Amino acid sequence: MRLSRYFLPILKETPKEAEIVSHRLMLRAGMLRQQSAGIYSWLPMGKKVLDKVGQIVREEQDRSGAIEIMMPTIQSADLWRESGRYDDYGKEMLRITDRHERDMLYGPTNEEMVTDIFRSYVRSYRDLPLNLYHIQWKFRDEVRPRFGVMRGREFLMKDAYSFDVDQEGARRAYNKMFVAYLRTFERLGLQAIPMKADSGPIGGDMTHEFIVLASTGESAVFLDKELLDTPVPGADTDFDADLSPIVTAWTSKYAATEEMHDEAAFAALPDERKVTARGIEVGHIFYFGTKYSEPMGAKVAGPDGTERPVHMGSYGIGVSRLVAGLIEASHDDAGIIWPDSVAPFDVGLVNLKVGDAATDAACEDLLAKLEAAGKDVLYDDTDGRAGAKFATMDLIGLPWQLIVGPKGLADGMVELKRRASGERETLSIESALARLTGG
Amino acid sequence: MRLSRYFLPILKETPKEAEIVSHRLMLRAGMLRQQSAGIYSWLPMGKKVLDKVGQIVREEQDRSGAIEIMMPTIQSADLWRESGRYDDYGKEMLRITDRHERDMLYGPTNEEMVTDIFRSYVRSYRDLPLNLYHIQWKFRDEVRPRFGVMRGREFLMKDAYSFDVDQEGARRAYNKMFVAYLRTFERLGLQAIPMKADSGPIGGDMTHEFIVLASTGESAVFLDKELLDTPVPGADTDFDADLSPIVTAWTSKYAATEEMHDEAAFAALPDERKVTARGIEVGHIFYFGTKYSEPMGAKVAGPDGTERPVHMGSYGIGVSRLVAGLIEASHDDAGIIWPDSVAPFDVGLVNLKVGDAATDAACEDLLAKLEAAGKDVLYDDTDGRAGAKFATMDLIGLPWQLIVGPKGLADGMVELKRRASGERETLSIESALARLTGG
Repeated sequence: MRLSRYFLPILKETPKEAEIVSHRLMLRAGMLRQQSAGIYSWLPMGKKVLDKVGQIVREEQDRSGAIEIMMPTIQSADLWRESGRYDDYGKEMLRITDRHERDMLYGPTNEEMVTDIFRSYVRSYRDLPLNLYHIQWKFRDEVRPRFGVMRGREFLMKDAYSFDVDQEGARRAYNKMFVAYLRTFERLGLQAIPMKADSGPIGGDMTHEFIVLASTGESAVFLDKELLDTPVPGADTDFDADLSPIVTAWTSKYAATEEMHDEAAFAALPDERKVTARGIEVGHIFYFGTKYSEPMGAKVAGPDGTERPVHMGSYGIGVSRLVAGLIEASHDDAGIIWPDSVAPFDVGLVNLKVGDAATDAACEDLLAKLEAAGKDVLYDDTDGRAGAKFATMDLIGLPWQLIVGPKGLADGMVELKRRASGERETLSIESALARLTGG
Repeated sequence: MRLSRYFLPILKETPKEAEIVSHRLMLRAGMLRQQSAGIYSWLPMGKKVLDKVGQIVREEQDRSGAIEIMMPTIQSADLWRESGRYDDYGKEMLRITDRHERDMLYGPTNEEMVTDIFRSYVRSYRDLPLNLYHIQWKFRDEVRPRFGVMRGREFLMKDAYSFDVDQEGARRAYNKMFVAYLRTFERLGLQAIPMKADSGPIGGDMTHEFIVLASTGESAVFLDKELLDTPVPGADTDFDADLSPIVTAWTSKYAATEEMHDEAAFAALPDERKVTARGIEVGHIFYFGTKYSEPMGAKVAGPDGTERPVHMGSYGIGVSRLVAGLIEASHDDAGIIWPDSVAPFDVGLVNLKVGDAATDAACEDLLAKLEAAGKDVLYDDTDGRAGAKFATMDLIGLPWQLIVGPKGLADGMVELKRRASGERETLSIESALARLTGG
């Protein structure tokens, strides 16, 4: 993509309304524009990252056996009356009346609707286990939306819902999502730690939040240092096998958010293993039994022929929130530092002297070769100053910068900069290409 | 994907509420479930087709130089007050009041919002041309939603918006979209004919509807037979070149919907070139000049330094509607016939005797080899009757059926059926694989 043809509205000034670093950087890097309080347009570079994050989430859901559907954003209030949540949900639910005076709402979550889908089609335990997910816009009418997409009103969420004949089956479903989440966050370049969450009236141990460690995180977290070295399951993990040893490895060591912190248990750890940090919640998995299936009549016949309400769990990842979370976890004073897996472009190609025939030709040649090798390149072919071009590249945080100018070219050399380390190297065009394409 | 682990809720009965064939088939084939009037969940197979259609639309928008963004579904009423449409739009607009009593709405279209994005960042003709698009859910509160996703209330639309310094530039933008649309529909396996639409108060010749020919279409259309043989531009089309010869080739011959039909002009055609058919609108492109930029103050400085409102056009494709349109254009009594480019799976692999060791082993081997070759396979590993399995495969309309049973296997043979032609052939496993993988 040529920058001259792209739409990348970099802001020179730091927007005053942005209170946290990810919000500031997303606005400055031209990823995002606020349309109303807590409601954002994703500009081209933001949209690319959002899609890449969503795609990794999708691939790991699919790998674990969950099946993708797409539920609508607008729901009937009647469904929520069945579960009793229509009255309970409060002002965060965006309530709507349609032209026929029917009560509708913009879905803040989809337990009721997915339970309705389930009960419409599934009758027998033989059709289980089943896990349906979608990646869809949700709306929660926060009283004071802030922090950009970290706590927006309209937000993109992946929510999965598992259906099993009994609690034992539900635990297997839960463990699959647990492992899928570990893999998802690792692929996103994040260190996410599962921490036990409050299970409320359901009770039990089947609810965890996944917390990304970031110095700018919203809340304090406490954990056993050994968790930082616990291995994340590989892509070859057999999701049909018993996953409980993996889950046990991750849950038997101390890790807690402020709300769930047990000072005495933490104090019992050897001092060198006590880690106090800050974190951002990016996922939540939750077993809730028959809370919805019972009032909504979502039943299956078991092996003995008797009908019983299905056991369910729900599993959320805030996809739009994650984009901000990634920036909170990976940035410096100059701007964003994208992990390779979600970077909007792999390489920023900087032409230091647009209009100089040799420099233009070298850049065009590099662009063509990188794209032929499958690399997504943002080519800065505008006639700005070198300093401004470098600042923009650092701000938008592409993993590699390839800098081409007439002086270096006279010796057949270009410069390659790794954004994360800041390391710069002068090397031949061929070597630079080989480095970038793994050739 | 193994059918035993998939969620494909085939309906045996034809749903009474479905008035048109695409709606009937989408419900029967387990693609869709109605949640409220005109509001649908896309079940797994429906979601796959929706994504494939959306991806082809995206690729052709990108090829033409349009840039993808993502605007939110919920908009502020104030934006629509600026253009004057808040009061004009009527009851089809879903109006919402948030918890702070602010007037909001669920976007039925995005001219105002995209104009707001434009005016926030773009100041100079040097940043033009620009074409921004998104693929996002929209809502129109139809008084009587019907025909499934052909005329739903919540629907997925691709809408692009072009910005140019003058009408001449806008025509170039228009022509790019015109060609992109021809390519998009051809890749979807559809014969779509651009037909002049009513330009209303704007006037001029820059508005066309793209109409798919289908015997079950919603309205009559009249066209010159030569249009059916007019070539669609190839993937190597240079979108920076003058595209007007292509547009002229497609617009200089007679083609009109009922509303725009000119009986005298049609009568002047030689009889053998008169085609009367039925059609479905699947796209609409439209130049509207400064209708929004003027009241909303979206101006750029021209080469002479004076500011002027930008010239705009909008370009829509109903992505969810297209899924139904595809079925209207391609089905038979037994079910859907998907074009290869959007089929939810490439191959349906039918095991005629699940539990028979040799048959199971042959199927597993075929599944592994087809998937290794990049084919997306739905493997019917359930223990149903052969007749029911065949009926399901015909209903869901995958391009190829590969049928494996113990009798054929005894001679090393399997059966391959092409859904579109109904042609069946008995051949060796190796030949079948070679046929399906192009090996």
